[in-house]
Order: sequence, then C-alpha cells, then structure tokens
Amino acid sequence: MHIHASVAALLAVLATATPTSAQQPAEPPTPGSIIAAAPAEDWRAIDPADLLVMDLAPDAAGQPRRVVIQLLPAPFSQGWVENIRTLAAARWWDGTGVYRVVDNWVAQWGAGEDEAGKSKPLPPGITPVPETAYVTSVLRGPEDGRDHVLTGRGANGGREEIVVSRWLDPYAIGAHVAGWPVALDSQGDGTAWPVHCYGAVGVARDLSPDTGSGAELYAVIGHAPRQLDRNIAVVGRVIEGIEHLSVLPRGTGEAGVYRTPAEHTPIRSVRMGDALPAGEPLRFEYLATDSDSFDRYLAIKANRQDSFYKVPAGGVDLCNAPVPVRRVQS
Amino acid sequence: MHIHASVAALLAVLATATPTSAQQPAEPPTPGSIIAAAPAEDWRAIDPADLLVMDLAPDAAGQPRRVVIQLLPAPFSQGWVENIRTLAAARWWDGTGVYRVVDNWVAQWGAGEDEAGKSKPLPPGITPVPETAYVTSVLRGPEDGRDHVLTGRGANGGREEIVVSRWLDPYAIGAHVAGWPVALDSQGDGTAWPVHCYGAVGVARDLSPDTGSGAELYAVIGHAPRQLDRNIAVVGRVIEGIEHLSVLPRGTGEAGVYRTPAEHTPIRSVRMGDALPAGEPLRFEYLATDSDSFDRYLAIKANRQDSFYKVPAGGVDLCNAPVPVRRVQS
Repeated sequence: MHIHASVAALLAVLATATPTSAQQPAEPPTPGSIIAAAPAEDWRAIDPADLLVMDLAPDAAGQPRRVVIQLLPAPFSQGWVENIRTLAAARWWDGTGVYRVVDNWVAQWGAGEDEAGKSKPLPPGITPVPETAYVTSVLRGPEDGRDHVLTGRGANGGREEIVVSRWLDPYAIGAHVAGWPVALDSQGDGTAWPVHCYGAVGVARDLSPDTGSGAELYAVIGHAPRQLDRNIAVVGRVIEGIEHLSVLPRGTGEAGVYRTPAEHTPIRSVRMGDALPAGEPLRFEYLATDSDSFDRYLAIKANRQDSFYKVPAGGVDLCNAPVPVRRVQS
Repeated sequence: MHIHASVAALLAVLATATPTSAQQPAEPPTPGSIIAAAPAEDWRAIDPADLLVMDLAPDAAGQPRRVVIQLLPAPFSQGWVENIRTLAAARWWDGTGVYRVVDNWVAQWGAGEDEAGKSKPLPPGITPVPETAYVTSVLRGPEDGRDHVLTGRGANGGREEIVVSRWLDPYAIGAHVAGWPVALDSQGDGTAWPVHCYGAVGVARDLSPDTGSGAELYAVIGHAPRQLDRNIAVVGRVIEGIEHLSVLPRGTGEAGVYRTPAEHTPIRSVRMGDALPAGEPLRFEYLATDSDSFDRYLAIKANRQDSFYKVPAGGVDLCNAPVPVRRVQS
C-alpha cells in the first residue's frame, strides 16, 4: 500500500510494544517504539480536575464529539485558568458554540457577539488578567545553576526543573517543564512562556491591553503560529478529540467567523474533568519531560533511523515533537 | 468581537490596499498591508500548464470542491512532476479518491490498493525516479559568490538566485527561489531541496529505495513535518482549495486509511490547468521571492508591530511565512 510507513510508527504512540524475536534483527527505535517501551515510572497522571471536557452536539451521523483539554499548571497562565474554572462551574459555555474556524489557523468557541454586538454576560468572579502574566519568572537554582519554576506539585517540593532542548528553536530557547513545551527568553531576562503548537488552546482577546477573560477560547488547527507567543495567553492543549474541531467547515465571514448562527457547532456542555457524572472515567498520563524516555524520544524525532528514512533531519522544532499523552484504560 | 485582530490582516492578503487618510496616523505595516502594497512588477504569473486541477465530487450541500496545486519548477523533483503530467494526461486519477486522512499530518489520494492488494495499473510512460532526485545541486555564481539554480525560466537566462533567509531554520538553511521555500544543506555540500510546509504536496511511497511514481499523492494538513524533507519527494503545493482536503473526516483504519471505500471522497477529474474546457480561467500570481516586497513581508512576519502585538517574535520559521499567491480576476 502506498502509505508512509513512518505514519504507522507515529500512530503506534498509544499501542503496546511488540516483543521482538531474538532471531530478527532489531529495527532501529522509532518515536513510537520509545514511547511504548517507556517504563511506568516515566508516566505521570493528569489530574481530572485539570481537564476541561467539551461535548459538542453529535455529528450528522449521531456520533458523540468530545474534546478533552488539559489546562496548564501553575505558575503558567493561572489568572485565565482560574477564570476558565469559574466559567465551567457556572456552565457558562453550555448552549454556546464554535463560531469561527480558519484553515491553518484556529477553531474558536464561546458566545461571540449577537447581532446587536452584545456578548453573553459573564458569571461573577471573572477577574481581568494583566499582560505581565503572559510570561513567568524562572528561578535559577542556587546549587546547580539550572532553571526551575515553582509549580507547587511534582517532586522536589514543587520546584520543577526546566529541561532545555538540545534542538534549535527559531523563536527562543526551546525547553520543557512538567510535561509542557515552553520557550525561554534568549536575551536571558529570566522568563519562560507556554507556546502555540498544534492543538494549543488560547484565550481570544481584543486589542492590547485587553488580555481576554477566558470565555472565548481557540484551538490551533494548523502550523504553529509562534508569533502569538507572549501576545495571547496559552492556557492548555487538546489531548483528545482535536479532530472534532479541525474538520469543521471553514467560516466564510470576516476573519473566518461563520456568516450565520445556523453554521455554529453547538456546545452541549463544558465541565471540569472531576465534575462529570460518576462512571465516566477520564484517566490520562503524559510522558515526563525530564525522563530519559522523553530525551530519547526527542533525539529520535530529530534523527529518524528506521527503514523509511534515508536522511535524518538533524533537528526538530519544539512543535514538531508533541509531548506524548495516553489514555489509561480503567 | 473576541477575535484576533491579526487574523483580519492575514486574511487581507488578497484584498485591495485601503488608502490611508493623511490625517490619520499610519498603522505599522502588517504582512497583509505589505502584500497589498506590492507593485505589479513584484508579482509573477503562474503558468496554467504548471497547475494540477483536482475536482472532487461536490460536497453534501452540492457545492463544488476544486483543489488547485502548483507543481514545482525545474530542476526540483522533475522526474515525479513529469510522471504527474503523464498521469493527468491519461486521466488516471479520474474515478479514484481520497482514501487516507490523518489529523495534523496528511490527506492522501490516488487508487490505493483494492481488497486483493492490487493497485490500479499505471499508464505507459511512467518512469522510476532515483533517490538522488530528492535534492538538487546548487550553482555558485562565479561573479558574486551567490547560490543559483538553473530553472530554465525567469530572468538571467533561467539562472535563478537563491535568496537565503535572514531567519533561523531549525533544520537547515532556509531560503527561497523562484517563489518556493527551499532548504540548503548546512554542511555546505551544495544541495537544495523543497520543504514540507502546510499545503505541500508530496509523493507517497513504499520503503526506500522506492520513491513512488507520483500516482499516490498527499497534501500536508498540519504542522510542517520537516523530517520528511529529502526522504519523500515534494512536488508542489496547494494554492487554492486546501480546505476541501483539511476538513475531510479522519480515517480510522491502519495509518489513517479509511476502513471502507464508501468513506473515500471521490475524485471526478484531475487535469492540467491548460487542459480545462475553454472559459475556465485559472490565473494566479505569486509574490517574487527575490523582491523587496517579499523581504519586507518576511521581516514583518518575524516582528509584528501592529496594535494587536505586544512582543515581536524575533523570528519566523520557513513554513510560518507562506509565499503569497493570489488569484487574478480576468
């Protein structure tokens, strides 16, 4: 079949490792085989309380459409994340819709404006967030000179080490912390910020100094628009169901907004992952970005050696190596 | 309205420039305003004979779905491009379909294999292409020390200058030639190759040393998979209608192949742009990549200064600055 053999490996990310017979020469590792072989201790549980679960109306064939979004941990973007928790608790998004989709750009949802130019009133407790919150300060460890951020969770008293990537980033210094890709200021001002990769979820806003409330959100459905980094708040990433957004018809109105409300995809409900009805398990894990497995995964993404490849790339940009996330079967 | 003001500018690529009143302070340039202001001599016509026009079956609402692909000029990938011309002349793709779609990866079309594992026979004149054709040699100009390739068209006797980008590329040396993004070998072996950006069209293949005939093609519908550069032939790019591919349902079979032929999107016809019925104009232009306008466009893509932006990115990767292409109204 004329397909990319490489894709099978990429899609095998969530599959079980296949034991190799001792008689067969071993195929060089692939990103998928490294992920499959990662030991249990390299996987970290994602707290359902950090998941935003968006159920769209069923599709034309009656199939359910659930989009699962993981929110960023402290200290990144927490002002917006708290607003999002408030909006979910108030069930503010229920009955709103996806009102804007632009090819190779974003799918955006919330209430938008009605024909009179009014937006849906926000619930009590929504707090404006300053532009200074687009970046977060990095702590430099006194003992080892490494960069850390205080997440309040994880090992080392919530002092999470930032692992700087060996691979070149065209925008900043690429790094990972607590399962997320982040960028570090290359001028050395001691800040880090989350980045706009495929599937990233951000907070739509009006012109600066407005930073958006968190009520209008978008997911990236194209090549990473890294120019938005530090200019719009990234608050999370889609970890399951991005295809329910990326296949939606592109809007034909101004800036890709649908021309009519009838074109919107209705949102039935948005709840936090710990507020679902009992019996709906929502267990996910990510591959620890400070693990040897992740380091090997990046190295192989940068230099594929398996039989499909003739020339290794010699590099991998921050958004071309998504942090592996897997659903855990109960 | 809670939208990205920036998007309006990006979408304004094809719009007419709006005169600014002398009384109003001028807004800093945007990629869209630079494109709109580019003089006529900075635009180059795309020969309809270099366009591959794929008409999918109309969508569920009866709307036509046309995908227009520009093929790469000599000397890049010409073995496959010649095969593609032969296939189009033979109307080989008519009646085949889009049989594989993978989120953040590719949409792929052609005949695939039937249930007996057989592929549709190819027409006479299809020639295997060696792997050496993934890259092309660069000529170093004796006078000025600059890099050129011989395209056989354009100014300077078809000796087209490669303009090296000022902006960092994480995989190679980023450059443009004759309206296309290309990469140069950073080890200085004197080769250049076309790159896998969003919308790039490539030749699906089996394992090396097979390089594919050109009968099975794919378009990139996600973040640029640059690891495929020099490993699969890039033969062109979608310049209109990519959304007809990017919105297709994702396949749920192995490697994203649809499980049943009923899920395929039928291809009604694929013809070269100079073989359409009379009266179907197909006039496009691209912004010359050796023009001052394009240089300014790249500079502003790398450092947005308009009012939506607070912090300029300080860089732009090769695939985050698509070469502007516009349809010319007859």
